[in-house]
Amino acid sequence: MNQLRYGVAYYDEYMPYERLDEDIAMMKAAGINTVRIAESTWSTHEPQNGVFDFASVDRVLDAMHAAGIGVIVGTPTYAVPTWLVKEHPEVLAVTADGPGKYGARQIMDITSPAYLFHSERIIRKLISRVCKHPAVIGYQTDNETKYYGTAGDNVQLQFVKYMREKFGTLDVINERFGLDYWSNRINAWEDFPSVVGTINGSLGAEFARFQRGLVTDFLAWQVSLVNEYKQPGQFVTQNFDFEWRGHSFGVQPSVDHFAAAEAFDIAGVDIYHPSQHELTGTEIAFGGDMTRSLKRSNYLVLETQAQAFPNWTPYPGQLRLQAFSHLASGANMVAYWHWHSIHNSIETYWKGLLSHDFQPNPVYNEAKTIGHDFARLSEPLVNLRKDNKVAVMVSNEALTALEWFKLPDGNTYNDVVRWLYDALYRMNIECDFIQPSCTELSRYSLIVVPALYAAPDEALERLNEYVQQGGHAVYSFKSGFADDTIKVRTSVQPGIISEACGIGYSMFVTPHEVRLRSGHPEIRVAADDSGAKTWMELITAEDAEVLLHYDHPHWGEYAAVTRNRYGSGTATYIGCMTGSELLSSILKNVLQESGLWGAEQELAFPLIVKKGVNPHNQTIRYYFNYSDTPQSFVYPHGVAAELLSGKEIQSGEQVELEAWGVRIMLEAGSN
Amino acid sequence: MNQLRYGVAYYDEYMPYERLDEDIAMMKAAGINTVRIAESTWSTHEPQNGVFDFASVDRVLDAMHAAGIGVIVGTPTYAVPTWLVKEHPEVLAVTADGPGKYGARQIMDITSPAYLFHSERIIRKLISRVCKHPAVIGYQTDNETKYYGTAGDNVQLQFVKYMREKFGTLDVINERFGLDYWSNRINAWEDFPSVVGTINGSLGAEFARFQRGLVTDFLAWQVSLVNEYKQPGQFVTQNFDFEWRGHSFGVQPSVDHFAAAEAFDIAGVDIYHPSQHELTGTEIAFGGDMTRSLKRSNYLVLETQAQAFPNWTPYPGQLRLQAFSHLASGANMVAYWHWHSIHNSIETYWKGLLSHDFQPNPVYNEAKTIGHDFARLSEPLVNLRKDNKVAVMVSNEALTALEWFKLPDGNTYNDVVRWLYDALYRMNIECDFIQPSCTELSRYSLIVVPALYAAPDEALERLNEYVQQGGHAVYSFKSGFADDTIKVRTSVQPGIISEACGIGYSMFVTPHEVRLRSGHPEIRVAADDSGAKTWMELITAEDAEVLLHYDHPHWGEYAAVTRNRYGSGTATYIGCMTGSELLSSILKNVLQESGLWGAEQELAFPLIVKKGVNPHNQTIRYYFNYSDTPQSFVYPHGVAAELLSGKEIQSGEQVELEAWGVRIMLEAGSN
Amino acid sequence: MNQLRYGVAYYDEYMPYERLDEDIAMMKAAGINTVRIAESTWSTHEPQNGVFDFASVDRVLDAMHAAGIGVIVGTPTYAVPTWLVKEHPEVLAVTADGPGKYGARQIMDITSPAYLFHSERIIRKLISRVCKHPAVIGYQTDNETKYYGTAGDNVQLQFVKYMREKFGTLDVINERFGLDYWSNRINAWEDFPSVVGTINGSLGAEFARFQRGLVTDFLAWQVSLVNEYKQPGQFVTQNFDFEWRGHSFGVQPSVDHFAAAEAFDIAGVDIYHPSQHELTGTEIAFGGDMTRSLKRSNYLVLETQAQAFPNWTPYPGQLRLQAFSHLASGANMVAYWHWHSIHNSIETYWKGLLSHDFQPNPVYNEAKTIGHDFARLSEPLVNLRKDNKVAVMVSNEALTALEWFKLPDGNTYNDVVRWLYDALYRMNIECDFIQPSCTELSRYSLIVVPALYAAPDEALERLNEYVQQGGHAVYSFKSGFADDTIKVRTSVQPGIISEACGIGYSMFVTPHEVRLRSGHPEIRVAADDSGAKTWMELITAEDAEVLLHYDHPHWGEYAAVTRNRYGSGTATYIGCMTGSELLSSILKNVLQESGLWGAEQELAFPLIVKKGVNPHNQTIRYYFNYSDTPQSFVYPHGVAAELLSGKEIQSGEQVELEAWGVRIMLEAGSN
Repeated sequence: MNQLRYGVAYYDEYMPYERLDEDIAMMKAAGINTVRIAESTWSTHEPQNGVFDFASVDRVLDAMHAAGIGVIVGTPTYAVPTWLVKEHPEVLAVTADGPGKYGARQIMDITSPAYLFHSERIIRKLISRVCKHPAVIGYQTDNETKYYGTAGDNVQLQFVKYMREKFGTLDVINERFGLDYWSNRINAWEDFPSVVGTINGSLGAEFARFQRGLVTDFLAWQVSLVNEYKQPGQFVTQNFDFEWRGHSFGVQPSVDHFAAAEAFDIAGVDIYHPSQHELTGTEIAFGGDMTRSLKRSNYLVLETQAQAFPNWTPYPGQLRLQAFSHLASGANMVAYWHWHSIHNSIETYWKGLLSHDFQPNPVYNEAKTIGHDFARLSEPLVNLRKDNKVAVMVSNEALTALEWFKLPDGNTYNDVVRWLYDALYRMNIECDFIQPSCTELSRYSLIVVPALYAAPDEALERLNEYVQQGGHAVYSFKSGFADDTIKVRTSVQPGIISEACGIGYSMFVTPHEVRLRSGHPEIRVAADDSGAKTWMELITAEDAEVLLHYDHPHWGEYAAVTRNRYGSGTATYIGCMTGSELLSSILKNVLQESGLWGAEQELAFPLIVKKGVNPHNQTIRYYFNYSDTPQSFVYPHGVAAELLSGKEIQSGEQVELEAWGVRIMLEAGSN
Repeated sequence: MNQLRYGVAYYDEYMPYERLDEDIAMMKAAGINTVRIAESTWSTHEPQNGVFDFASVDRVLDAMHAAGIGVIVGTPTYAVPTWLVKEHPEVLAVTADGPGKYGARQIMDITSPAYLFHSERIIRKLISRVCKHPAVIGYQTDNETKYYGTAGDNVQLQFVKYMREKFGTLDVINERFGLDYWSNRINAWEDFPSVVGTINGSLGAEFARFQRGLVTDFLAWQVSLVNEYKQPGQFVTQNFDFEWRGHSFGVQPSVDHFAAAEAFDIAGVDIYHPSQHELTGTEIAFGGDMTRSLKRSNYLVLETQAQAFPNWTPYPGQLRLQAFSHLASGANMVAYWHWHSIHNSIETYWKGLLSHDFQPNPVYNEAKTIGHDFARLSEPLVNLRKDNKVAVMVSNEALTALEWFKLPDGNTYNDVVRWLYDALYRMNIECDFIQPSCTELSRYSLIVVPALYAAPDEALERLNEYVQQGGHAVYSFKSGFADDTIKVRTSVQPGIISEACGIGYSMFVTPHEVRLRSGHPEIRVAADDSGAKTWMELITAEDAEVLLHYDHPHWGEYAAVTRNRYGSGTATYIGCMTGSELLSSILKNVLQESGLWGAEQELAFPLIVKKGVNPHNQTIRYYFNYSDTPQSFVYPHGVAAELLSGKEIQSGEQVELEAWGVRIMLEAGSN
Repeated sequence: MNQLRYGVAYYDEYMPYERLDEDIAMMKAAGINTVRIAESTWSTHEPQNGVFDFASVDRVLDAMHAAGIGVIVGTPTYAVPTWLVKEHPEVLAVTADGPGKYGARQIMDITSPAYLFHSERIIRKLISRVCKHPAVIGYQTDNETKYYGTAGDNVQLQFVKYMREKFGTLDVINERFGLDYWSNRINAWEDFPSVVGTINGSLGAEFARFQRGLVTDFLAWQVSLVNEYKQPGQFVTQNFDFEWRGHSFGVQPSVDHFAAAEAFDIAGVDIYHPSQHELTGTEIAFGGDMTRSLKRSNYLVLETQAQAFPNWTPYPGQLRLQAFSHLASGANMVAYWHWHSIHNSIETYWKGLLSHDFQPNPVYNEAKTIGHDFARLSEPLVNLRKDNKVAVMVSNEALTALEWFKLPDGNTYNDVVRWLYDALYRMNIECDFIQPSCTELSRYSLIVVPALYAAPDEALERLNEYVQQGGHAVYSFKSGFADDTIKVRTSVQPGIISEACGIGYSMFVTPHEVRLRSGHPEIRVAADDSGAKTWMELITAEDAEVLLHYDHPHWGEYAAVTRNRYGSGTATYIGCMTGSELLSSILKNVLQESGLWGAEQELAFPLIVKKGVNPHNQTIRYYFNYSDTPQSFVYPHGVAAELLSGKEIQSGEQVELEAWGVRIMLEAGSN
């Protein structure tokens, strides 16, 4: 991609009256240079089985081309037409709650032959028709694909075969999954029960892994179809998304993003986040770091919010702040969902750039300034490269395992991930994400490992070796506890990593009025610190230094947080959840130990700094004020051009940032 | 009806031992002159298919007649017998949750031919038998009829035909309901999916409207059967009820009361309300105003509470206060559900006038005073006429639409209705209720319009015209937003009424720490006012005066509450929910502007005043003390007879009201 | 049983690697002399239909015998194997929620012939094989048996026959169950509907009673099978359990423990309780008192917690305190669930004595001291006899009835039971439990009757007679209200017992700001007393003395708590729920009145005293400190040997108890 793209999702099919020319004129005025179409309008394009009508696609492509706007065409498979469900009700996923009902999108059995047959036909019809159209710059397969809980008899049958393929014999399965427990043992393949009712977390987690594999396979199959038509210069992407808590929150439970991303040319993502007084930029950074890590490259923000919900309508300045925050994380495109607000159905209050009246409004007007700046600054800002020295290791398997074996206070895997990630974000530490299968750990000076509850031996051994060879690792509680079939390890805990950590434990309790007491001069526990939270492991520090002790009449002899020198590196183990201040104090100490404390760390949230190097080897630094009050800082680097204002900034100069403000420094001597 | 009626529901069938003579003696002692029977005892009257036994009906009619007590006979169709369900399980409604289970009442598919056949037969058998009995004064069809969620295949089939009849073609439906969205488009009638799983609020709301039509049709059909037997002087009524929140709360979601009431001679209602320290009289006024408005006439309170629940058992004086409050709203009958408490099953703790021991008790003893006064004062108090100058416009369609498109904080349509209605009630403003289809708006000086989210163009144009011709309108937020298929209007908001209101908006947000700032000298914002709540529209006042501004760093430029002179009238628009004090201040200002501020408004809750004119053209004013402490006021009207005490009250005289007290003033010179 | 038993549940089948010899060595070191095996491992012992493999049983029996450890063998029927469910899906219970899904234990239709056939075969195979093995000391049938909601068509058919058998005619049923209400009348046996959807609490409660009967029958059938093989000296027991609120809480709703216990040689129980700072010993006392009462004899604690959950891992000393508390209530065995923590599936975090690493840990180490003391002190402590003078009368029927007719604030029957029981516990009053069918009331000086909502006339008449003849009774609100078909009594309330109580009421309300005012010099209401809670009956004291009045502007004329002399005894009636302090004050007064206030009552929680007489007629007194701070008391009885320390304690000597400490006094002259 050789330019910044500023885009919107556009649905000619949903328009209450003829709007195309007027919309394009307004897009041009706002600097929109990309639209995404067609990913949810199958019933318009195939109104009856085998009857096709691409009139809206054709006319939009023609009009966009005439206006110089590039188009990403989606395969329209994530929402099925009425006729298909009437003819073949089996295209709806049978889930643990029973058969599905028509209405919503994303309710299909993605293994159903009827669904696959009709999907393939509409994909081939649509993509073959548009692929040579000069407006088309790329494709999106499906949208926010998941497995939709599909777990009917046909899926159970596939799962049995998967289990036989993977584990060979029932004896192995009975042993590794502990099926003797409560008489769950399976002694003949024919007896394999549906796992919908299972109480065996090992089996349940394996089924979830199998279901995630269905998503990987389904997307790869769609890509293989689209690739047959893809022209030089065009790309295929997918719109990944995250665990949803009313907004993008954490690791996606239903998709292995790394595996699924392999088939694509470029990763895409939707990122939705709290706004107004709750805007922090954390989700923009989290989603960007994750998506950039999938293919270790730049990515597309295929969807983010314009006005969206009533509690998200941005304050003046926030839309700009957000757009440049995406670029600063490595995005090459920022696209809104969506151009115009919809007048019927369930997303009526998920507003676009335009309100229902299609008139200019404050948000649209702010977008115009962004589009103008994207066009003006595309050259220095596109294709930003990162060389992060910190990685966060995340795992779908650990996430699922902790759904089965929950933390007692309702916190989940992603709460632990975000507890650690957010602390790093507030300290201006940019991260990559890696999986336990990563074999290139030595890229990083520090690897942060949240709650890696279930992992294969090899992964943990690699981490031990990484530390031994000079790496620094930070583990949270619950790491290393179980193997990859979620069988708890029979050794002292935290299992294999206890060697590098220099600790052991076999007991753990729920904290109740347990304070923390420092064992290290640079880690200070504030008087109002809330103490141990969520979970606490009763750690015996064998070789390790105790950074924090539990302060409690009965558990006071145990360590809460430890650090161990192992080989040339260190392993820090955090045995309980803490308040965010105390965590920052621990992490600051680790960062200093790891040689990662620099000028950016002297600033902190709400002053957020992100940096990278452009293809001209120029260092770009973004400074963001994530607050409603002006901020200032002393610019510590070499003389720079501030790209938005065009002003030159000297080293040591005081820089003022208005509320929700942005500055972009191109360091002069850096190419 | 030529006398006040004081009644009870009576179930000879439920008696644990022979009670009839004793019960009638106790009724006579309490002034009970009416009983309602038979509406839920089908299984007693038809113990087997085609075998009839009306012994309990016959003996009750004979005994009541002998005692001079009139009887309302109910058709026993709202609870089906065991044999019918065993023979024809399809009489149970199939709902979104699946097939029904036998046990409760009100679980039928009211379109089932088996249900209708057997209903018709028992109705004809019962009504033909009793119609000439001299005890019978009238009939009630069914009871609290609704559609019970019926949504099975047969109902879906009827709905498709309804849609074709109403809209003609699928093209029209696809366009008006926005079915292209998420591939919901329907291109052949055969493909029309069950709407049980729909995510399209337009379609869902239309289905609810269709279901309400089933209720209207079912009741009209029952009335037509009963009318074949009805004798001169007898009436047919229905027991309507309200949205239930543990008590009668607001507009009934499942029935179009206005349409359903057409078939009946007189409207009936049940009204249940909080009691003890929570008794305010609001629900009595709300339910009365609504029911009186259905046929613009007097009505029957077919059910209200005697002892009822443990938190409703009335304090001394409350039962009297309640009874006269019903009369003051225009009721001609007050009947308790029910005479005696029941010894088995689910309503054991919904106690009647008598406890389970059938002995006199404090509540029964208080009823004796009421019955005595009803008999004594029937002549001046029966058939009270009202000429209210204020109407509240309510809409089933808006209610359903706001169920689909919810307010963010959980408040619903009826919360907005009650927010406005309750403020008027506390100011002693008596109201009528009207629907958007009302064409006689000019009856009223002021029309209050809560959250009229979805309405046809004509209705909104009539409101504009009403204002232009001198009427005064008050709209809340969310009014005018969508048309009658819940499609959001594509014009500036609030759509058609923006013309009369002189405002426009296209953005709206969730309030967070947003205060309100007065823009009008007579509207004062208290220091402790809670500010904007629930929802706020970012209004630009074009021609309108701004009564209240938002006070917020980013939304401060927008108006919260506006008033516009339009033609000879005014339109006030309230763009956010406010505290009740501030709302009262706004409404007071509107009332003064509309010439509706009078002597009654100088009093306020807990002193409640209601008035009317009796058939002798005498003005009757009721004064109620809805509090646990004595109140007093200066009587401002012409010399009157206080009917309960018989004392003469002079203009300007100080009147004392004991806790929960009542006074009834018949103005001497008023006939 | 001639020795104290200290045990664990042991699952060789679940072991991740060969552990048997090492486990036995560690057990021996801890004084474990009993293990329970096999109760949940059917799929291991019958891997396919008719194929049996008892290898793990055989080897465990042999090894345990070699080590001198006794074994209790469980019938493995409470968790069904996969092949059985595949062959006969009907073995899964059909409940009100529909058909079951395979996975969990305790999901069977315990009336299914397929289940019974296969259960019988595995029982006979297993028990015939092991019965002569010298390691086997007894058997447990099934485990924590209940009816699992079984309510399918076959069960409904049995229920109809049960109803005909019990009540004879439908006329009787219609009358006693009040089925005329809402047209529920049944006029032909064929029309009897499934009661799954019933809204008739009488019918629903009768169905629950019928279902409890299925449990009694099922267990008796299992016992009869095992008895065919049982050898002299062996016993058959059942592991009863309690209403579960995350721990053992109250009367088991799904089992009539008294009826079910009849078939067994000795009662067994599992008792799980809060721990750490929430450990009070109440559940140990409650569960012990209940289980000892079932057969009026000693009992086995077949399961209690070792480490268990993170919030239960005991503080140092607590495990000892708990173990001796069980003995003090009359247990002859304390067994942990379970030996080792499990590495897979749903109870991974229900930890055993050993953690997942099988290494010694602080809890195991504390168990070693317990095992040592059990062995050392078995002779004086085994077979403790009690002669309690206080009984608490509990009723499954009242419990179920109050599920149908709930208290308004969410409190349930067991909350009322525990409100009273816990107050007695804190006053060191040891209790028996009895049922309403008990005819030996005269054993007791005081009978406490919580919320006996539904009971047959005879039971209440026996209570009246008991009081008349000198007994003392304490009733809570809601007692006596309905008969045994949950039909509310038609007399003045509280029905039959109103005679002995000398009171009457017919109205009841929900308390709102209702204080209590003392009417008796020795009952003091604290200034901060919270007043009436949950429910209040408006009592008129006819003959009775008023101990507490309601203090309220409208209900002040009514009594809250009364006492009546009736014959030679007294009946105290508590018409509302109170705070626990005030309840203690009432109970203290009753106890003094009943001559039950002794030296133990001068101490109070956290100092808990329990006593009994051993077979040598020596009085044993246990003193427990249920707190985290040291306590002391003056020993008031005759000179004693403190068994744990071996010290002699003089009368009047000050005894110090460390946090969570225990002392056991054997009174010297008492045999």
